[in-house]
Amino acid sequence: MKTNYDCIPCFIRQTLDSVKYATSDQRVWETTLREVLKAVSIMDLTKSPPVMAQHVHRTIRKFSGNDDPYREIKEKYNTYMLEMYPLLKEMVENSSNCFGAALRLAIAGNIIDFGANLEVNCSVVNKTIELSLSEELIGDIDYFNEAVCSAKSILYIGDNAGEIVFDSLLVQQLPMEKVTFVVRGNPVLNDITIIDAMSTGMTELVNVIDNGSDAPGTVLEDCSDRFKRYFQDADIVIAKGQGNFETLSGVDKKIFFLLKAKCHVIAQHIGCNVGDSLLLKSDLFKPE
Amino acid sequence: MKTNYDCIPCFIRQTLDSVKYATSDQRVWETTLREVLKAVSIMDLTKSPPVMAQHVHRTIRKFSGNDDPYREIKEKYNTYMLEMYPLLKEMVENSSNCFGAALRLAIAGNIIDFGANLEVNCSVVNKTIELSLSEELIGDIDYFNEAVCSAKSILYIGDNAGEIVFDSLLVQQLPMEKVTFVVRGNPVLNDITIIDAMSTGMTELVNVIDNGSDAPGTVLEDCSDRFKRYFQDADIVIAKGQGNFETLSGVDKKIFFLLKAKCHVIAQHIGCNVGDSLLLKSDLFKPE
Repeated sequence: MKTNYDCIPCFIRQTLDSVKYATSDQRVWETTLREVLKAVSIMDLTKSPPVMAQHVHRTIRKFSGNDDPYREIKEKYNTYMLEMYPLLKEMVENSSNCFGAALRLAIAGNIIDFGANLEVNCSVVNKTIELSLSEELIGDIDYFNEAVCSAKSILYIGDNAGEIVFDSLLVQQLPMEKVTFVVRGNPVLNDITIIDAMSTGMTELVNVIDNGSDAPGTVLEDCSDRFKRYFQDADIVIAKGQGNFETLSGVDKKIFFLLKAKCHVIAQHIGCNVGDSLLLKSDLFKPE
Repeated sequence: MKTNYDCIPCFIRQTLDSVKYATSDQRVWETTLREVLKAVSIMDLTKSPPVMAQHVHRTIRKFSGNDDPYREIKEKYNTYMLEMYPLLKEMVENSSNCFGAALRLAIAGNIIDFGANLEVNCSVVNKTIELSLSEELIGDIDYFNEAVCSAKSILYIGDNAGEIVFDSLLVQQLPMEKVTFVVRGNPVLNDITIIDAMSTGMTELVNVIDNGSDAPGTVLEDCSDRFKRYFQDADIVIAKGQGNFETLSGVDKKIFFLLKAKCHVIAQHIGCNVGDSLLLKSDLFKPE
């Protein structure tokens, strides 16, 4: 997915939001903003938004000297969701359709995104969970269920901290021996790295690998050869969140995208409303 | 007032909003965005926000070839408010404090601002009018009333189209023979120029001059010598809106600012809430 003109003000907004997380030194805010403005002024709009965001967050880390500005945020939401895990597990087990309930909750968890221009806090998360089982889900759950049941191997590309706890509910509904779960190679925004997979117990459920990249999405050409082999070999891919959708929706592969639409650019692109819960297939994935 | 870091994403947002008004040619959107991003990356943050906004809107006019992108918007709101004028006039006349009512309505009219990151439409305007007479007004109305009554000359610097109709209510409560009303020298955003003063009847009430500048505020060094003489000679100045506040609040002159606080940067600077109605004095204007 190309970068939309409306993404440009959002890059600058995200830069300022994020550099404030990275440091309280206002001189760094200014240097970072100036550097990013210059970079965006010459950016290639045919690339997806996470390519620019990757550059933005590298700049923030470089100028602030803070390698992981969202570490505290990530720990907060991992902890918060782990505390809530028994309740979420119960929601799945009490449902007449455990697979559907776990899927809906995994999508609900995608609300914990500190890149989008949305307020995220515990009460927003609670509200999203509360609505998740009853609200409309755009997509074909049964088809998705059949696809994962018949798949020989599944690559599950995660997205954010906190959200990974919701992912573990869905992972447990999959044939776990066939699943490999993917985290980012390096910190960017509140996206998960191997630390989050370990601290939330994902590493105890399934094989976990990192993608070797610090983009807030899956920019294939930036990923490690190891990840690319996994991606190539996977029978189907499950990809969480907007960043993974923006970078992979045009790739010729059987990919299911699980996400909340969190801005009007993506909503317009998909043809849905902001806030919608989505189970989408990649553009070139045509079911037989 | 200096430019705040939080103004920077807002410049880029305003650029895109405005260039969409100026042209439907997306190549112009892109060229303009790239040019403004470059300019903002090297901007002098000790200048007030309208100095950068002036450059933004010059760039938009230059690249789009549209000399007055907000002409239709300005006409729409002038017409809408003129239609509502008899009702507004009645609100003033039926009030136990005509001066206070006219002042409150003049401030309410400041909601018609297409530069701020707010939705403006007729229903928002109606709602603002409805609340204006009863809601809290921060400032000393009686002191302001005494100051205008005893002034030998009053310079009233207007702000936006549509809003100018509200201004005419307040102007009629002032000693009109002592009042000079000021419009911008050239189009910028939905700010008023001489055309708006003529079409709304302001020129029939009082002396009207333009300030010779295309900044969305009053950047003194950019104004004509004629305006500067008027400014120098005026006993008191009444200045409408955020742009005039941002450019004049630090000037050593008896200035009363009448405005709605329309973003968190200005609200934080003043120490009020977004949406508040304000009657402020300039920093260096210390009543005897």
